[in-house]
Amino acid sequence: MLEELKEKVFQANLQLVKYELVVLTWGNASAIDREKGLFVIKPSGVPYDTMKASDMVVMDLEGNKVEGDLNPSSDTPTHLELYRSFPDIGGVVHTHSSWACSWAQSGRDVPAYGTTHADFANGCVPCARGLTEEEVKGEYELNTGKVIVEEFAKRGIKPDECPAVLVHRHGPFTWGKDAFKAVENALILEEVSKMAFQTEQISKFDSNSDIGIEQYLLDKHYQRKHGKNAYYGQK
Amino acid sequence: MLEELKEKVFQANLQLVKYELVVLTWGNASAIDREKGLFVIKPSGVPYDTMKASDMVVMDLEGNKVEGDLNPSSDTPTHLELYRSFPDIGGVVHTHSSWACSWAQSGRDVPAYGTTHADFANGCVPCARGLTEEEVKGEYELNTGKVIVEEFAKRGIKPDECPAVLVHRHGPFTWGKDAFKAVENALILEEVSKMAFQTEQISKFDSNSDIGIEQYLLDKHYQRKHGKNAYYGQK
Amino acid sequence: MLEELKEKVFQANLQLVKYELVVLTWGNASAIDREKGLFVIKPSGVPYDTMKASDMVVMDLEGNKVEGDLNPSSDTPTHLELYRSFPDIGGVVHTHSSWACSWAQSGRDVPAYGTTHADFANGCVPCARGLTEEEVKGEYELNTGKVIVEEFAKRGIKPDECPAVLVHRHGPFTWGKDAFKAVENALILEEVSKMAFQTEQISKFDSNSDIGIEQYLLDKHYQRKHGKNAYYGQK
Amino acid sequence: MLEELKEKVFQANLQLVKYELVVLTWGNASAIDREKGLFVIKPSGVPYDTMKASDMVVMDLEGNKVEGDLNPSSDTPTHLELYRSFPDIGGVVHTHSSWACSWAQSGRDVPAYGTTHADFANGCVPCARGLTEEEVKGEYELNTGKVIVEEFAKRGIKPDECPAVLVHRHGPFTWGKDAFKAVENALILEEVSKMAFQTEQISKFDSNSDIGIEQYLLDKHYQRKHGKNAYYGQK
Repeated sequence: MLEELKEKVFQANLQLVKYELVVLTWGNASAIDREKGLFVIKPSGVPYDTMKASDMVVMDLEGNKVEGDLNPSSDTPTHLELYRSFPDIGGVVHTHSSWACSWAQSGRDVPAYGTTHADFANGCVPCARGLTEEEVKGEYELNTGKVIVEEFAKRGIKPDECPAVLVHRHGPFTWGKDAFKAVENALILEEVSKMAFQTEQISKFDSNSDIGIEQYLLDKHYQRKHGKNAYYGQK
Repeated sequence: MLEELKEKVFQANLQLVKYELVVLTWGNASAIDREKGLFVIKPSGVPYDTMKASDMVVMDLEGNKVEGDLNPSSDTPTHLELYRSFPDIGGVVHTHSSWACSWAQSGRDVPAYGTTHADFANGCVPCARGLTEEEVKGEYELNTGKVIVEEFAKRGIKPDECPAVLVHRHGPFTWGKDAFKAVENALILEEVSKMAFQTEQISKFDSNSDIGIEQYLLDKHYQRKHGKNAYYGQK
Repeated sequence: MLEELKEKVFQANLQLVKYELVVLTWGNASAIDREKGLFVIKPSGVPYDTMKASDMVVMDLEGNKVEGDLNPSSDTPTHLELYRSFPDIGGVVHTHSSWACSWAQSGRDVPAYGTTHADFANGCVPCARGLTEEEVKGEYELNTGKVIVEEFAKRGIKPDECPAVLVHRHGPFTWGKDAFKAVENALILEEVSKMAFQTEQISKFDSNSDIGIEQYLLDKHYQRKHGKNAYYGQK
Repeated sequence: MLEELKEKVFQANLQLVKYELVVLTWGNASAIDREKGLFVIKPSGVPYDTMKASDMVVMDLEGNKVEGDLNPSSDTPTHLELYRSFPDIGGVVHTHSSWACSWAQSGRDVPAYGTTHADFANGCVPCARGLTEEEVKGEYELNTGKVIVEEFAKRGIKPDECPAVLVHRHGPFTWGKDAFKAVENALILEEVSKMAFQTEQISKFDSNSDIGIEQYLLDKHYQRKHGKNAYYGQK
């Protein structure tokens, strides 16, 4: 079932390798068929170079495995929670990419320091709080999803305004209209995370340096790419 | 029309990928035919791996599309302004390359810290001011070009003395006698931007460190490569 | 003799190159046949691109060469000491990988700053003390092994809880159930060493940053991958 | 003439590209035939991907071109001075590799912080002083060589104890018994320069960090690889 979606999710997972966002088996991409209420996800701990499209696992939105010989990614309940709470997203990606993880480990939001960031998200990329001992000892991966949803609600950010989040001490999750877009957002998050680090380091050397971004510039770039009257790209 | 120039601009855009100066579709190269008063530029938001030479867009110097099925790069008005104001340049490149963007985001000029830089530019690479709210809300991309031209005029720098600029909070623009030279300058700018960061970091660790460059050394390297009596390379 | 093990050790050494953990000939992997009491190791100073499986050297646990035309790695006595003192390990790797060496050179343990680390080791990766003048002038490579064993004993860490160590002023050693797992651990160590550096640098910029890891989160990730009830991966 | 040496110098120059030590045409390798008193060097400013072995230029030790259609590297007089003053060296390399240049630009010696460095050089890699205005305006490239020779004499370092030098505000020169060994030393210098930076940065975060190296450890590693009784590698 869902053979076409399996192929896409498989290809999206391979893109994580191509874009150097994963080391070994650290990462997973999934995508959902909203009509059927089923999503397809990478199996857990399977090496990318021997993985096949038919290894992809089909899950329902109650967290039951519907099809597949292998165990789904151990992070499946996080994907599930995001699909349930963010009804407009079609794909989810989790990686341990180096720069995004380093910001997550520092417990800091990735600041919007320029137009590269503004083309991607309408403000900083939030770092959600770490999980409590109870949350970790309970349904850990599900609670990870809940903490993400809570963070967006608390800050009043809509998932389509910022397609990425960090979880403190852990790493990034990204999403998009499908698995490929979620991968693309994981790549962009890594790039802006690296640039934000570099920007701060360069800035520290000169007291006249001025970092940050004006709301009007943030809006301009975000809107020219994602807004109603967007004019970036082709129709 | 301009099939040969389209092929060159196409190849120059692919070099941006080869040199790892662009991620996804972030970047564009163009070149001008001064006799005809027309320039050729990459289409907006088209992936590099499916792009063809025939996708290149031909523009005139009033900003009208003369040929092409696709929308030109959204940064086209910036290229246009540079071609109009810098009459000796033949190619323009814009990227979001990581190190150059990080200096742009910090709002700092890239200092001339050694001969690698001096082989490239006869002084620091200027960081132009950010655009005002009015400039952003108006003809944003055109105003970006105007701010660059204004910065060079204010500092009394000629475009052939420094083939690169940063725009605050945004990123680098480079130019050259043709699109390939503009790409080469984008690559050099990225390299010297990285080295300038590293030099400052290494320097901070030792109070005896001495960074900067003497005018005579800057002149020597710039002139041996670009001066009247240049002796670097072949005739 | 041990042709199959030689092939595996040969392949493991080539993986060090593929993962960019070695420059030139800097690094070596070995594996042991516990039943026969023999281990197989890379020859000393042989370039990876001309090396053959048949160049691997067979050693006994008294440090005698049992088979092979070439000299074994100069680090052989360190491998030997680890095989003797850590009876459950099956493979050992030594590299001069950039980030792990830099932590070793700074004399610092690599702190556990997040779940990427917790998936790998149940606490920081210890940096063992440097060798004394007597230890260096004596059986240097053997003493390097002894210092590692001493450090684990002193801290009460079991080798299977942390499959890696740094030696001050020198570099990393890693181990695992076989040579491939030891290589994988060398790769993970390099990755978490890099992330730990980045995390500290990012953290320094903001006094609200909070780095470290709670014991319950460390336990959770370590146990879900390595514990009795591990549920990461496939059966 | 010297066709075999030309082929070797050509191949050594290509290795500079393979090892990512050069960008564009920034770098050159040469080698000398001591019996004939002639050396072979890369032509100036020729792209590596179209260069042929027959493009190599033959020079004598008075600085005259003996054979070749192209201009020799503009750095030829520096190579010449090193061949004249260091009679035991057989190959010379100059690059603008990123980390070595950054130390050169900071005006600092690369400190010996561990065994990776000690395997390479018996102490820090010296940063020679920058050239005076007179030296720059005079025979600049020749004077660059003289400043290097002066620095080694002043510090009492023999060229075979440290096969590398930095020139302040400029970059690295390395040497060896032939062009390939000089390339290898350029690669090692880049690697230890990067590690020295990382070591200092990691060290700064913890006041208990201890960086440096004891003379006995420096000696041990240098001697086990380069000394009379060296036991690294094969006979």
